Amino acid sequence: MLEKNIDTFIGCDAEYNDARIVLFGAPFDSTTSFRPGARFACRAIRTDSYGLETYSPLLDRDLEDIDVFDSGDIELCIGSSEKALEQISKRTATILNDGKIPFMIGGEHLVTLGAFREVFKRFPDVNIIHFDAHTDLRDEYLDVKLSHACVMRRCHDLTGDGRIHQFGIRSGERVEFRWADEGHTELHRFDFVGLEETVNRIGDVPVYFTIDLDVLDPSVFPGTGTPEHGGVSFMQLVDAIRIVCSGCRIVGLDVCELSPNYDQSGSSTAAACKIIREILLSIK
Amino acid sequence: MLEKNIDTFIGCDAEYNDARIVLFGAPFDSTTSFRPGARFACRAIRTDSYGLETYSPLLDRDLEDIDVFDSGDIELCIGSSEKALEQISKRTATILNDGKIPFMIGGEHLVTLGAFREVFKRFPDVNIIHFDAHTDLRDEYLDVKLSHACVMRRCHDLTGDGRIHQFGIRSGERVEFRWADEGHTELHRFDFVGLEETVNRIGDVPVYFTIDLDVLDPSVFPGTGTPEHGGVSFMQLVDAIRIVCSGCRIVGLDVCELSPNYDQSGSSTAAACKIIREILLSIK
Amino acid sequence: MLEKNIDTFIGCDAEYNDARIVLFGAPFDSTTSFRPGARFACRAIRTDSYGLETYSPLLDRDLEDIDVFDSGDIELCIGSSEKALEQISKRTATILNDGKIPFMIGGEHLVTLGAFREVFKRFPDVNIIHFDAHTDLRDEYLDVKLSHACVMRRCHDLTGDGRIHQFGIRSGERVEFRWADEGHTELHRFDFVGLEETVNRIGDVPVYFTIDLDVLDPSVFPGTGTPEHGGVSFMQLVDAIRIVCSGCRIVGLDVCELSPNYDQSGSSTAAACKIIREILLSIK
Amino acid sequence: MLEKNIDTFIGCDAEYNDARIVLFGAPFDSTTSFRPGARFACRAIRTDSYGLETYSPLLDRDLEDIDVFDSGDIELCIGSSEKALEQISKRTATILNDGKIPFMIGGEHLVTLGAFREVFKRFPDVNIIHFDAHTDLRDEYLDVKLSHACVMRRCHDLTGDGRIHQFGIRSGERVEFRWADEGHTELHRFDFVGLEETVNRIGDVPVYFTIDLDVLDPSVFPGTGTPEHGGVSFMQLVDAIRIVCSGCRIVGLDVCELSPNYDQSGSSTAAACKIIREILLSIK
Amino acid sequence: MLEKNIDTFIGCDAEYNDARIVLFGAPFDSTTSFRPGARFACRAIRTDSYGLETYSPLLDRDLEDIDVFDSGDIELCIGSSEKALEQISKRTATILNDGKIPFMIGGEHLVTLGAFREVFKRFPDVNIIHFDAHTDLRDEYLDVKLSHACVMRRCHDLTGDGRIHQFGIRSGERVEFRWADEGHTELHRFDFVGLEETVNRIGDVPVYFTIDLDVLDPSVFPGTGTPEHGGVSFMQLVDAIRIVCSGCRIVGLDVCELSPNYDQSGSSTAAACKIIREILLSIK
Amino acid sequence: MLEKNIDTFIGCDAEYNDARIVLFGAPFDSTTSFRPGARFACRAIRTDSYGLETYSPLLDRDLEDIDVFDSGDIELCIGSSEKALEQISKRTATILNDGKIPFMIGGEHLVTLGAFREVFKRFPDVNIIHFDAHTDLRDEYLDVKLSHACVMRRCHDLTGDGRIHQFGIRSGERVEFRWADEGHTELHRFDFVGLEETVNRIGDVPVYFTIDLDVLDPSVFPGTGTPEHGGVSFMQLVDAIRIVCSGCRIVGLDVCELSPNYDQSGSSTAAACKIIREILLSIK
Repeated sequence: MLEKNIDTFIGCDAEYNDARIVLFGAPFDSTTSFRPGARFACRAIRTDSYGLETYSPLLDRDLEDIDVFDSGDIELCIGSSEKALEQISKRTATILNDGKIPFMIGGEHLVTLGAFREVFKRFPDVNIIHFDAHTDLRDEYLDVKLSHACVMRRCHDLTGDGRIHQFGIRSGERVEFRWADEGHTELHRFDFVGLEETVNRIGDVPVYFTIDLDVLDPSVFPGTGTPEHGGVSFMQLVDAIRIVCSGCRIVGLDVCELSPNYDQSGSSTAAACKIIREILLSIK
Repeated sequence: MLEKNIDTFIGCDAEYNDARIVLFGAPFDSTTSFRPGARFACRAIRTDSYGLETYSPLLDRDLEDIDVFDSGDIELCIGSSEKALEQISKRTATILNDGKIPFMIGGEHLVTLGAFREVFKRFPDVNIIHFDAHTDLRDEYLDVKLSHACVMRRCHDLTGDGRIHQFGIRSGERVEFRWADEGHTELHRFDFVGLEETVNRIGDVPVYFTIDLDVLDPSVFPGTGTPEHGGVSFMQLVDAIRIVCSGCRIVGLDVCELSPNYDQSGSSTAAACKIIREILLSIK
Repeated sequence: MLEKNIDTFIGCDAEYNDARIVLFGAPFDSTTSFRPGARFACRAIRTDSYGLETYSPLLDRDLEDIDVFDSGDIELCIGSSEKALEQISKRTATILNDGKIPFMIGGEHLVTLGAFREVFKRFPDVNIIHFDAHTDLRDEYLDVKLSHACVMRRCHDLTGDGRIHQFGIRSGERVEFRWADEGHTELHRFDFVGLEETVNRIGDVPVYFTIDLDVLDPSVFPGTGTPEHGGVSFMQLVDAIRIVCSGCRIVGLDVCELSPNYDQSGSSTAAACKIIREILLSIK
Repeated sequence: MLEKNIDTFIGCDAEYNDARIVLFGAPFDSTTSFRPGARFACRAIRTDSYGLETYSPLLDRDLEDIDVFDSGDIELCIGSSEKALEQISKRTATILNDGKIPFMIGGEHLVTLGAFREVFKRFPDVNIIHFDAHTDLRDEYLDVKLSHACVMRRCHDLTGDGRIHQFGIRSGERVEFRWADEGHTELHRFDFVGLEETVNRIGDVPVYFTIDLDVLDPSVFPGTGTPEHGGVSFMQLVDAIRIVCSGCRIVGLDVCELSPNYDQSGSSTAAACKIIREILLSIK
Repeated sequence: MLEKNIDTFIGCDAEYNDARIVLFGAPFDSTTSFRPGARFACRAIRTDSYGLETYSPLLDRDLEDIDVFDSGDIELCIGSSEKALEQISKRTATILNDGKIPFMIGGEHLVTLGAFREVFKRFPDVNIIHFDAHTDLRDEYLDVKLSHACVMRRCHDLTGDGRIHQFGIRSGERVEFRWADEGHTELHRFDFVGLEETVNRIGDVPVYFTIDLDVLDPSVFPGTGTPEHGGVSFMQLVDAIRIVCSGCRIVGLDVCELSPNYDQSGSSTAAACKIIREILLSIK
Repeated sequence: MLEKNIDTFIGCDAEYNDARIVLFGAPFDSTTSFRPGARFACRAIRTDSYGLETYSPLLDRDLEDIDVFDSGDIELCIGSSEKALEQISKRTATILNDGKIPFMIGGEHLVTLGAFREVFKRFPDVNIIHFDAHTDLRDEYLDVKLSHACVMRRCHDLTGDGRIHQFGIRSGERVEFRWADEGHTELHRFDFVGLEETVNRIGDVPVYFTIDLDVLDPSVFPGTGTPEHGGVSFMQLVDAIRIVCSGCRIVGLDVCELSPNYDQSGSSTAAACKIIREILLSIK
């Protein structure tokens, strides 16, 4: 008798009950203003993860040694941001209720709000570490409050000042930078200088970790909706991830904004896959 | 002194006051469920229209002889279908108020609703002639009522039974076909058989004419979100357009669902451009 | 508790025991001489099948009414044709042993041999109906006997003369056409003329049905390794499929040679998906 | 001892002295106004010709039976049309002087002028049979007289009225059609109706045969600078070619305007290759 | 009443009379020998500039604070380099006559000559700062003197020795490097070492600044006709631009050789856009 | 009389007898497990080499000064690894027998085994210097011993311990790294640290030099089957090549794993071309 065709990220074939980390995909990009396509990321990442090995020579660890469950993609309401966010919250809640760490693969950056709302309910003192090229701090964008360009602002509506720590930021409106600099968020321009200090300061407070992959320089990662030059290198990002994952108490996380079809070479998808593997192997 | 850089569809450089037909673009695709990208159509059509001539040997007419104004694209709320539809309605209203014919270039098919709502206000007896591969008659799709997959159903909410005339339809859920066949719409499968009779029957009643370009076979028109094989040929479509445009009293129209980046050859965009030219030259 | 991520062709979610037809993928293209890539077909077909509906207006039937199981792709020995064929035979044997019809999605055309060997064991009087642009009748190609260009010749090694019925053929070496015309196979050039007669003649003898999708004209189906102009239209193929599937006693079948990455528009993959659906709905 | 790496169109490996037909490439596209790239055609055609067979089942003839020499591409002055035309004339002259038939592979359509000037010198009564989507009859285009859009007008400067026979034409300025209809050329719109009559009328007068491949419908041949829908099918073109090649006394010919990179599927290049093979096998 | 559709680079919506800098496009690539396509740059840059913000966090300045006019693209004579250069000179002259700074967006590098000729007339002591991967110092290329490969040599015909300052150069014929090293130009290999010294030395003499974007490494900027590895990084280029724009008295400038279609990811176009913004914000 | 069309890498037009180095192509990728296409590299490299100059400003040397013969591509048995390797060995043997250095352009990395077997016969003390992202040390892969993933292990079968020197390695199974670290090969992770020491240690012992171009970071070289981030830069690779080529006694070499169609920009092919030129100019 033949078995059903199960599709997972490489090496993430644990049983649900055994898993400490649970992957899921949020294939949503309805608020993307410039170039859509992030919805295709989750599936491309699963497929191309088989071009990776399960072993990381950098960390000298192997996915075979840890237990990760891949619960697949949510079938989201395309066309209604609020409903889509609710569906994401629901999946996140299930995972959190079972005492596991939700690891969401976007999708555009707005999906973070769906997961974070649920994390925030359970961990009201949670901090956010945010890697991105863009501030994402607008109060409204194209007349809409639920937009990828506003997602950190919406998170700030929940957390209040000083609990969002942004790194790698190199694009936004002048007013967004001014607003951050008034103390609403801790905004680090261009790179990861100051990250270790931030991680030390946060200490054992729970952390939601969100990575917009366009923090990478477009030479490394052209496969994204809004390529923004002057970004960090792959190794800089991997190092920064290790600092966060080994130093913080992560209670939820996501990796967003791969738009795989903009990079026909598959190199951007390969970068996303390797980053996800390094994260999975680094979480303490 | 140098002039500003004005960008129009080829040959559509009339002054607004002189124009009988007014073009505008609705670069919206937020409810596209399968593959987004129709938002890029309006701009691609303007650019590539310069690969066309203004003269049609088929009709022996020239765009130089008629007055069309191109009012450019609306900057739409990406992420909120209702707000986007309102903006489309507003542009349509301006054009209708000035006694001109609005000719919208989509975008995905949901944009039709924004234009049609306004046309319906002024012409309550308006009929719709609808060319498409898909029924677009779902009452709800992925939990959403404002979806490209529901657009004709939403129009039917306004018109009631028997006033929507669909041609070329070859895809949909069984329940949609059943619903149409109960008499709610006049649904013609696969091709344009019966079109002349329908046009004659409609007579002088005002008509809104909406073309989802995926009515074309994907061999002719692969550049669309959901290619559906078994469609009509280019010449079949051109002939059908001539029947409608020369036989009906058109009060508004649109051409939707080119997704130019899915056809890197530019051939699909060229098809859209030529169809728009033939329409402009055929409207009586 | 969350469920594992199961990936199937649209509407093929029956339990194994209930299924009459069992799909599987054979992602192999190691003998492709001109342009590889057919290995990517199986996964692309599953993914893009969700751009289809389960209902066929042409047949007025729905996948929801039949029971098909999708057993996923075999992980094949890339680099050894013989071993890959053995793996295909093994999967085919399992399905045949359970009294079901194996429906393989290639992969290049050589994969047919793996399935057919097993079918031939159980049904020694089996005939082959073969749709293709190419003869595939070489005895040897580039010094190799197990090649896509030799696959029908290898099948003929088993069946002997007169039991392979080829349609749509429009490319091959002169010697292959001569060999066929000597009576070794029933070779019909260019189209499906004579198909109904052949189907009637075969009667109730078991049939293995193999479709190389490049039988379609490249205007319809550019996404294949060796596009060969002058082929049949989509509707011609669909009609021919209906004749075979409703007229013959099919005991095994395959659809081969989609190479999805050569058609970035996705239109070729959409054609393959729709053809698979029409086959599933036509098999008597 | 190893041999040099010789690159030819498939089956065109005769010695120069034995050859009756001599191929050469003219990789020029400097006057292309809309989308350049025809310069890449010659090389792509040679490379992809190996996806063809040497045998034509349609004609039941084989390239192995005839003698064709491929003299490779001319290295042309990019940036000066006049110099490029001189270089083309020089290669053409060599071939004509040796009593052979020059068969040029473009490049954009302007290259025809370089070859035709030389043919006209030797055969002052030569007629032109011209397959194209476009009239190419402008006297000047973008301030330039040597342009792809003017090439037939420049040939007319040599031949005078009534000796250019155009088929398949479906695009141009109104004034060009008017000018042709005044009797300057014999312009047949849209298809090949009237071709046999024209061929019979021409009788044994020498003919230069020039094919702009965009005469094909873009569904068949999207890989060209200016796709123009409503064109002929592949089989219509092949039939028309057979009428010309078997009915006329061809003294020179060319195939132009493949722009291979606009069709990543390779299907357009495959069409060009097959057409060249059918021509080579049809010339009487 | 609706307004015409005006298309500009982001944030460049000043009235002509108020503007200090005037943008224009020169969509020309007729002498490109290897791979054409730079003609598409101007339009792509305008379109994709809307993926940028108007604010530069690097410079802490905003396009909203300065006055730039975008006068659109010149419709150039494709096929005649001399005529195209005349048209460019004419546009440049208008801008210079109105006391403004012309900022040209190429096109291939030959367009620089058209602008520079006019600048040279008004500022006979003008120096050129030239960033490029290639020397562009040939006296003739493929039998042509007006070629992208000769453009700096043609400028040198006007300026004479010692007034052209080249940086980033890493490709050319041996003879070109030798010629430069004889003192005809100041040629700096590989990077920007020595730039500040050069800028200081030039002092207040007027400067024409020409950037061939292929000075960037192809990892950053693959979208160009002749990618040449071993180039500078994005941040190196931005720093060098700041040195020139804030240190020199710029009287004219251009950015050339983006060929957007060679980089389907849009990342190269994004780089060009950001560089243009940083230039606009840096000019003193 | 016209000459045959000879196609070589730029500047490699020596007569065979005069040549010290002989290029040949091995267009094979049948064991590529993830994404095929390396078979297209040899031809793409020849074509695009004409975007290069023959002169290297880095080395201040010119291909015009050395004698290299390009013997073209072997027509390989697609579908049988063993036969393909035999054909490669045969070509290598001819070149070695004539006292010349064979320089093979892959193809996938398995081709190295065909050349190395022959080199090993003549130089039994030969060492291998191996640049790669991947270990290539599996004993078996997907049930096959002759696989790109096993190629260095197969070479080790010949050389035994300590004679394979690997650099840049950053991907593989844990067991492969463990096996290497047991002393079977000298495996250097991530970069070229230690290379000069290795070269000095090897001294005058003959060296086979094999470069898998995916040792480069995917930002530089996305055009490969399995992009692996975290690699070396172009200049790091060029420096390392110079160390090997000027320090070792090279008796054979190859450059593998360009898969040109995965990088439509041509930038990866340009990298391969430039690397081949730098190698040719560096070999002592």
